[in-house]
Amino acid sequence: MKRQMRLGMSMRGLGYHPAAWRHPKVPADGSLSFAHYVRNAQAAERGLFDMIFFADGIGIREKDEPRGSLARSGYEIVEMEPMTLLPALGALTRHIGLVTTASTTYNEPYHVARKFATLDLISGGRAGWNIVTSWSEAEARNFNREEHLDYDTRYERAAEFVEVVTGLWDSWEPDAFPYDKAGGLFYDESRMHVLNHVGKHFQVRGPLNVASMPQGRPILVQAGASEPGREIAAATADVVYAAQDSIPNAKAYYDDVKSRMAKYGRSPDDLKIMPGLRTVVGRTRAEAQAKFDELQSLLDPLVGLARVYNALGDLSGHDVDGPVPEPVKPPQVRSIVDQMMQRVRRDKLTIRQLYTQMTAGGFCLIGTAADIADGMEEWFDAGACDGFNILPTHLPEACEDFVEHVTPELQRRGVFRTAYEGATLRENLGLKPHVNRYVAARKRSQAAD
Amino acid sequence: MKRQMRLGMSMRGLGYHPAAWRHPKVPADGSLSFAHYVRNAQAAERGLFDMIFFADGIGIREKDEPRGSLARSGYEIVEMEPMTLLPALGALTRHIGLVTTASTTYNEPYHVARKFATLDLISGGRAGWNIVTSWSEAEARNFNREEHLDYDTRYERAAEFVEVVTGLWDSWEPDAFPYDKAGGLFYDESRMHVLNHVGKHFQVRGPLNVASMPQGRPILVQAGASEPGREIAAATADVVYAAQDSIPNAKAYYDDVKSRMAKYGRSPDDLKIMPGLRTVVGRTRAEAQAKFDELQSLLDPLVGLARVYNALGDLSGHDVDGPVPEPVKPPQVRSIVDQMMQRVRRDKLTIRQLYTQMTAGGFCLIGTAADIADGMEEWFDAGACDGFNILPTHLPEACEDFVEHVTPELQRRGVFRTAYEGATLRENLGLKPHVNRYVAARKRSQAAD
Repeated sequence: MKRQMRLGMSMRGLGYHPAAWRHPKVPADGSLSFAHYVRNAQAAERGLFDMIFFADGIGIREKDEPRGSLARSGYEIVEMEPMTLLPALGALTRHIGLVTTASTTYNEPYHVARKFATLDLISGGRAGWNIVTSWSEAEARNFNREEHLDYDTRYERAAEFVEVVTGLWDSWEPDAFPYDKAGGLFYDESRMHVLNHVGKHFQVRGPLNVASMPQGRPILVQAGASEPGREIAAATADVVYAAQDSIPNAKAYYDDVKSRMAKYGRSPDDLKIMPGLRTVVGRTRAEAQAKFDELQSLLDPLVGLARVYNALGDLSGHDVDGPVPEPVKPPQVRSIVDQMMQRVRRDKLTIRQLYTQMTAGGFCLIGTAADIADGMEEWFDAGACDGFNILPTHLPEACEDFVEHVTPELQRRGVFRTAYEGATLRENLGLKPHVNRYVAARKRSQAAD
Repeated sequence: MKRQMRLGMSMRGLGYHPAAWRHPKVPADGSLSFAHYVRNAQAAERGLFDMIFFADGIGIREKDEPRGSLARSGYEIVEMEPMTLLPALGALTRHIGLVTTASTTYNEPYHVARKFATLDLISGGRAGWNIVTSWSEAEARNFNREEHLDYDTRYERAAEFVEVVTGLWDSWEPDAFPYDKAGGLFYDESRMHVLNHVGKHFQVRGPLNVASMPQGRPILVQAGASEPGREIAAATADVVYAAQDSIPNAKAYYDDVKSRMAKYGRSPDDLKIMPGLRTVVGRTRAEAQAKFDELQSLLDPLVGLARVYNALGDLSGHDVDGPVPEPVKPPQVRSIVDQMMQRVRRDKLTIRQLYTQMTAGGFCLIGTAADIADGMEEWFDAGACDGFNILPTHLPEACEDFVEHVTPELQRRGVFRTAYEGATLRENLGLKPHVNRYVAARKRSQAAD
């Protein structure tokens, strides 16, 4: 059998194109509608996706420049809280993995351990935690802070947070509960473990008051682009959402992260690397391009100008169909602005052309199902990834298009499942079973005797 | 039409009798089984209950005295986290209210506001928040503290916490979202409000990134037994779970709390007071008593001794069928111990008889459906309550017994609904619609013009 692709479907809000909410087929109130999420989740399950995934922010997106742009953007304004939404989606699906973000900066490890353990129980072993260290000022100000924590503190806290959560998940060994009604023994004290964690950021005693997770423990997901992020991913993650936009970059990243795993006693197969991919599918290339062009045409100028605000400042006083003026305010990231302005000068871009092009950036495949499968196979065969995290432009259409057209094409080529292989997300991803640390220690000590 | 009773079904874990897990009809692993919770929730909905309710603790119960008793107790050891469980139950029910505890001591208001708002959206307007200030050392030690916060600090923090959460829930007025695709306007800035809360315990900017809750805002529930608790309940609660065990006590409590409401501009009907009630139903009185006796007989001596440990110390060295020795260690609450020992001397109780009697304490009705309906009506007609929060001895049987036998009896007597009246929990409870504070302020200011 050919090596199999892993597929995730990101389904935050209304989709990943900033004009998604204005699309005729998108329910503009969908990010507050349970039926909308159910439809998308069930479509992804029909398409045999390994998992659905929700990114998250604990506040409304705050880049309200130029003034008024936020109110014209349907993106990351109001939406359901994913840790509350996922159990409900779990009750209405049977196979698909349920992955969401939870911040290590604005949560407590005991809560996170409990909630994901409970999600794993409810869903029969389909829970996954995307570990993030939040960075936005908007989030900080909803949690008693004027500024977000500095980078080093966030990463240090995150590492300790994950240590506590994974420790709590091992509180009870798999055979801790004899449930012996006649003898009156509910649990076996020798199989229950008090963590007693005392660290720089957390003191957590344990044990966790949830146990018997079908996956042993939930799947750990990370983005892991930075240097410390890559190291944490190599040490602990089951899945990495990568963000490269070319095969050479993606392959370099893939090889780098996988090569770091041996020193943690892990095999490269223990971690699945899945870059984000936007797809626009048509029955013909022209139809696909027309679909994409329709979305691009719906981009509101103020929303477009907000996307270049950080680099170029407030251009709302300029004609959007006129030339891009030279940057006046000192740019935050010099190299990005230089690159952008080189392209502007070379192609003589108007402001509208610039922000429209920027919206089309990243790894994006537009074409027939065969074109898209070709692009995916090219990356996959080049050793640039283990699969993809699909970022649908607009929901539910882009998700349903993929499921209807691309899934069967990948199946025909023998690189994607025709039925779920296992009962849990861990099994479907082809990951090893989790072994409780106390069970492992006892086995080691018995082997040494 | 007669005044109607409100009914809640508490369904934490395996039930409220400490021997529940040993009962032949109880699934001993039920507190970790989604199917168990679904069965109970759907039974309560068949019985037209206003709501199901989950108490919660953020750690395993810790009164492991005498040694070994905890492992023999199936009670508050491992269970699902209710804020994760309720959305899943919401997806598989249509009418019943979904209420759970969330602690104001170990949470952040922005998270709590988001999660309950999301639950309200998922369930079509059935969310309720039971506000508690946690008090156990076991919980403190899972959240970076050696001891729990002192009483005054907990209540002060709780009051500010509720102020922030209710403020965040009003972030968006009901008409804040024109969703105008043609004009490109997603939300109306004049209908979005930034809370900018700066208090002693919290700084929370807002706005909340969830909106359009079917109930306007979730239902607020409290226990409210203490003096400040009664005042907070009178000022803000929609429902109070009371704990009196006699009509005179319950009526005094009821009258006291309701009389405090006028000064907050509230009518007595704006708050529903529901004492906890355990019921054991049989086709005959003898059958009901036999059911209760069976449970009592399953009480493990060590678990029983744990219930008298705080008052009388460790009696595990004594014969449980021998006399109760005089207390040796200084008791924590003198008056309770004196009362207990008076009864012991008067009735010449053995240790086993004492702990078994204590398990039967509280407001408990044992008998036929008619007996139980009689008892409930007596309280209800005496003005001691607006309904009851049923505490089933063991699940699912005690819940299903009630639904099958007592619900129809109450319906025959015309004191309980025969179909859900409204679409939301708020409507079913007969509470007024919630009015957004900014809408109310605008109306007041327009009326003054």
